[in-house]
Formats: sequence, C-alpha cells, structure tokens
Amino acid sequence: MRKKNRLSLAQYKEGILSGDRIILSRAITLVESNLQEDNELSTQLIDELYPSTGNSIRIGITGVPGVGKSTFIEYFGKYLISKGKKIAVLTIDPSSQKSGGSILGDKTRMNELSQDKNAYIRPSATGDALGGIAHRTRESMLLCEAAGYEIIIIETVGVGQSETSVKGMVDFFLLLMLAGAGDELQGIKKGIMEMADAIVITKVDSGNENAARKAKKEYENALHLFPPNENGWLPKVELSSAVDGEGAQEVEKLINSFIKKMKENGFFDHNRSQQAINWMHETVHQYLRKNFYNTPVIKENLPKFEEDVKSGNQHAVKAALELIKKYKA
Amino acid sequence: MRKKNRLSLAQYKEGILSGDRIILSRAITLVESNLQEDNELSTQLIDELYPSTGNSIRIGITGVPGVGKSTFIEYFGKYLISKGKKIAVLTIDPSSQKSGGSILGDKTRMNELSQDKNAYIRPSATGDALGGIAHRTRESMLLCEAAGYEIIIIETVGVGQSETSVKGMVDFFLLLMLAGAGDELQGIKKGIMEMADAIVITKVDSGNENAARKAKKEYENALHLFPPNENGWLPKVELSSAVDGEGAQEVEKLINSFIKKMKENGFFDHNRSQQAINWMHETVHQYLRKNFYNTPVIKENLPKFEEDVKSGNQHAVKAALELIKKYKA
Repeated sequence: MRKKNRLSLAQYKEGILSGDRIILSRAITLVESNLQEDNELSTQLIDELYPSTGNSIRIGITGVPGVGKSTFIEYFGKYLISKGKKIAVLTIDPSSQKSGGSILGDKTRMNELSQDKNAYIRPSATGDALGGIAHRTRESMLLCEAAGYEIIIIETVGVGQSETSVKGMVDFFLLLMLAGAGDELQGIKKGIMEMADAIVITKVDSGNENAARKAKKEYENALHLFPPNENGWLPKVELSSAVDGEGAQEVEKLINSFIKKMKENGFFDHNRSQQAINWMHETVHQYLRKNFYNTPVIKENLPKFEEDVKSGNQHAVKAALELIKKYKA
Repeated sequence: MRKKNRLSLAQYKEGILSGDRIILSRAITLVESNLQEDNELSTQLIDELYPSTGNSIRIGITGVPGVGKSTFIEYFGKYLISKGKKIAVLTIDPSSQKSGGSILGDKTRMNELSQDKNAYIRPSATGDALGGIAHRTRESMLLCEAAGYEIIIIETVGVGQSETSVKGMVDFFLLLMLAGAGDELQGIKKGIMEMADAIVITKVDSGNENAARKAKKEYENALHLFPPNENGWLPKVELSSAVDGEGAQEVEKLINSFIKKMKENGFFDHNRSQQAINWMHETVHQYLRKNFYNTPVIKENLPKFEEDVKSGNQHAVKAALELIKKYKA
C-alpha cells in the first residue's frame, strides 16, 4: 500500500517547490516512514531540495500542558499571517509514542489556523524513539522551508527530553508560562528555563494583569540569575492574552530584534552551522550505536551485562570492554 | 622507563588494599597512562579490586576560580579527619590540558591537608580529552575507595564541561559561591547551578555576615525557582568561613542528612546503579566513536565534509550517510 502511495522524486520535488500542501504532507509521511527505501528516497529528496531550505525563522515553543500552547500558537500564527507571512507548525508529542496516536495532533486544535491557506500544521505521528523524532522533525522542517513557509514553529510539551533536541534545531526558543512564578515551574523539566530566549506569560486576560506583571518581574529576576548566553542575549519576558488579542505584536518585535542582533553579531550563522555540524555527527553516532546494539550477540548479552553492572557485580568498564570484544568477534 | 616502574598486578592489589599511598599513587599513574598495556593492567586491577569499592561518600565540589575551593576543602577536610574520617581529594583541572602541567595541582595548595596521613590529594595530570579525564577520575576514585578512603572529594573549576561528568560519578554535588548573588554567577557555566545539591557561600568572615545572609536568601529564592530534583531533595544553602572556622559542621550535617534521605528513599542505590550503567554505555560509545574517527578514510575526508555542511553546501544527513558508506567500505 505504501508503494502505491509513493510518488517519484521529481513529483515530490516539484510539488514541494510549487507549495503543494498535499505533496508536502506526503513527503513528510515519507520522512517519517520506517521503510529503508522510503528513507533513501527522502534523503535524496532533501538533498535535492537543500539549496531551497534555510530561509525561514525557526522558532521552538514549549510549555507544560494547560499553559495554552495551541491557543497561543493559533493567536500568534494568525497575527503573523495577517502581516503577510506563511507559517508552518510542527508538533512533537512524546505521548503519541505510547498511545500510538498523537494527542496534540487532535484535529480540533488550532482550528482556525489549520484552515488558513497560509498555515500548515503537522503533528509528528510517530512510535519511534526520541532521537528519531528529532531527526524527522528536522527533515520535515527543511521540507516546509522548501515549500515556502517563512516561519516554522516547532511545538513541544515541555515535559520530555525533546526540548534539548528542538533547541538544537531552532533559532529562537520560547517558553510559555502562567502567571504566578513557582508552582507551575514544578511541571517544567530541569534545564528548559535555561534554554529559553524568552518567556511569554500566557492567559493574561483582563482582571489578571496585576498577577501577570508580578510574575513578569519574578521571571525577569530568575532569568537574571542565570549566567548569560553565549550569544550575548539576555532573555526577555512578555505578556500575552489570546482572548483579548494582546501580546502577539510584542512577541513578534522581540523575535525580530533577537534575529537582528544575532545576524549582526554573527551568532545566527554560527549557530546554524554548529547545528548542522552537530546534526551530521549525531547522525553518525546514532548509526554507530544502532549498529552496535542491533548486533545479535550484543542483543543477546546486553541484559545480563546490564544486570551485573547494576547490581555491582561487574565493573562498568570491564563489562563494556567485554561487550566490545564480542562485537568485534 | 615506564616498564621499569610498573608493578605486578598482585603488588598493586596488595599495596592498595593495605592502604599504601605510594602504591596507590603509582596505580593512579597506571590508570592515567596512555599505553595500551597499562590500560589493560589497570582494567584488570580495578576488576579485581571492584568488590572493595563503593563504600565511600562521593562528593563533587565546584566553583569559579577565586571562590576559595582549596581553602574550603582544606578546612572541611581537616574537620572530617578530626571526626575520624579518611579522605581523598581528586582534582580535575582542564587548564592542565593546555599547559601540560596541572595548575590546580600546585604543591602549595592544601598544604596542611596534604601532609595529613588520613588525607590523600591527587591532581589529575592529563593532556587528554575531557571524556578521558572523567574516565580516569572515576577509576582513580575506585582505587581510593579500595585503599580505604571513606570520603572522596572530586574538585573541578566550574568553568568547563567536566562538571556534568563529575555529577555523573558522585553522590552529592556542592557548588561554592561568594556572597553577592548575581555578579559572580557570570563565571559559572550554565546548568551548573541546577546540578547543585547544595550551595556553600564561602569567605563569610567576620564583618561580612550581613551580605552573606542576604546572599543566602537570594540563592535560596533562586534555587526555589528551579524544578525539584528527581530525588526529592530541595537544595540547601550554607555559610562557611575557613578563617573563622565556621560552617564545616553544618556542611557535614547537611551531607549526612542528604545521604540518609537518599538511602531511605532508595535513590542512593538507584543513582549509583544508573551511573554505573551509563558508564558502561558511555565506554562503549566512546569506543565506537574513537574507532570511527580514527579510521584513515574518515580522518582524511571529515574536514571537507564538515566544511561543506558548515557552509550549507551539503545536507548534514547526506554527509553523515556518505561518511558511513566510506567507513563501511
């Protein structure tokens, strides 16, 4: 059935370059496939499209469930479209790994945005490991760029490890928080706040402004306690209310001033080059690990070695060397 | 010359188990050696000593230059010895990688402690990569444990990447800071504060107490803003003055209560098992990477591929796949 659905390389390429959303979707499905021949075709496709990629602003958005991510993205996305932009939203939802279906990808989310011809929304439906998600999301992002989307938003749920991967593929990383510093931080995984280029406090609807302003001050103080970023940027805090239509303009301005500054100080290109190099090496490392752990003799022996090391019966390095010896044999 | 200096496996083993400091030092030199035959011998040695390891409390201590690490460790170490403990201090100083000699290892540091028969101080002299340092420090730590040291302190300078490695080999991670939150954080690498189980404010000498108490409050607030640790521990802040002889008792109590809590909730053993398993896998991964990057065809081709990926001429995944193809051939 997959074979039947597969297009030719030229069909994918032309379709994407002409902005055909259906072909874009089919190409992302190809990227997400576990079939060897699909992988080969998608690598070839991205290779051919590569000169047409890289022209978007890549934004990572995260926040715990309940913070209003899809509401914010719908509001912010519609604002960007009203300013003449084409935007793509890719969502990474680790919960879909367990259920086999994507919770975030529920069709009722971002209802208006998903019907706009200048927006493309795609959940990462995947049953694969986290490394795989990151890999696929990166390639899907490139496909969206080739299809002409100028702003790519990558959304994660803020409770998994996917945020570090996403930080490694975006230009700007945005953390959504609720008013009332402290409690809601409980749900955010360690290290995520440090990765943020900005925090946007959501649901600052009328009547809630005082608490929000207090929270803004608290977050600013907290961010001030972090060491400065390598890129010389001091993270900012903004307020937003999707209900009252407040904040989108400020967030856009903030992102633009970030991008401007990064382009001026050379960090924009430096960061993208570094991300690409890291991606190359990470792909190599993933291959090496996969190759090792999928070798029958390793598969067979690993559980016992892990048990011995875990229980303290065996020195970790000795165990590793023995596994390597078996692998080489 | 090295050959002449090498002892037999039995000599190393007996010497270490009987607490012979000179043989311990020679065994650590063996662990630090780059020679293949030394590595084989040291792996064998650690394998034989392994049942005698693991009985210490492993403490990581970090802080920027000028915070008074050696002064604190000397003061704290002498206090622990006065309570009947045997302590070992292993220092990791990335600066020694450049100079070829260890700056931290300067003999004038921890003068009194280094002359105490219940203390063993050893700088990591190494010209090797960071992964190597961590690997060697871990093995040196095991040797110290087998030699009967009950508290192992691993000191790092707080500005490199070695802290993450150290966090992965200790039970308790202590960050030293100066009074006056904010400015001195500038020197601390991102993420280190989040790893701390406790912060000790150093140099709280007479006349300085008010600033220190204010700083304590500020750090407590900052730590409160971090998400809680997996182990259920809320990081604490203590004050210390080596000059006035204040704080050692409180820090010891704090560490003891941490260890007690971790042993009760099972995290102590869980953490150690996890560290050992990670060490095994990390050793495998290091081997795989080394093997790959040392292959002549990769060495020869990598710079061009990196250049192409960096400049955007080549898709990272395509480049990785081509490198892998060359490697397999």
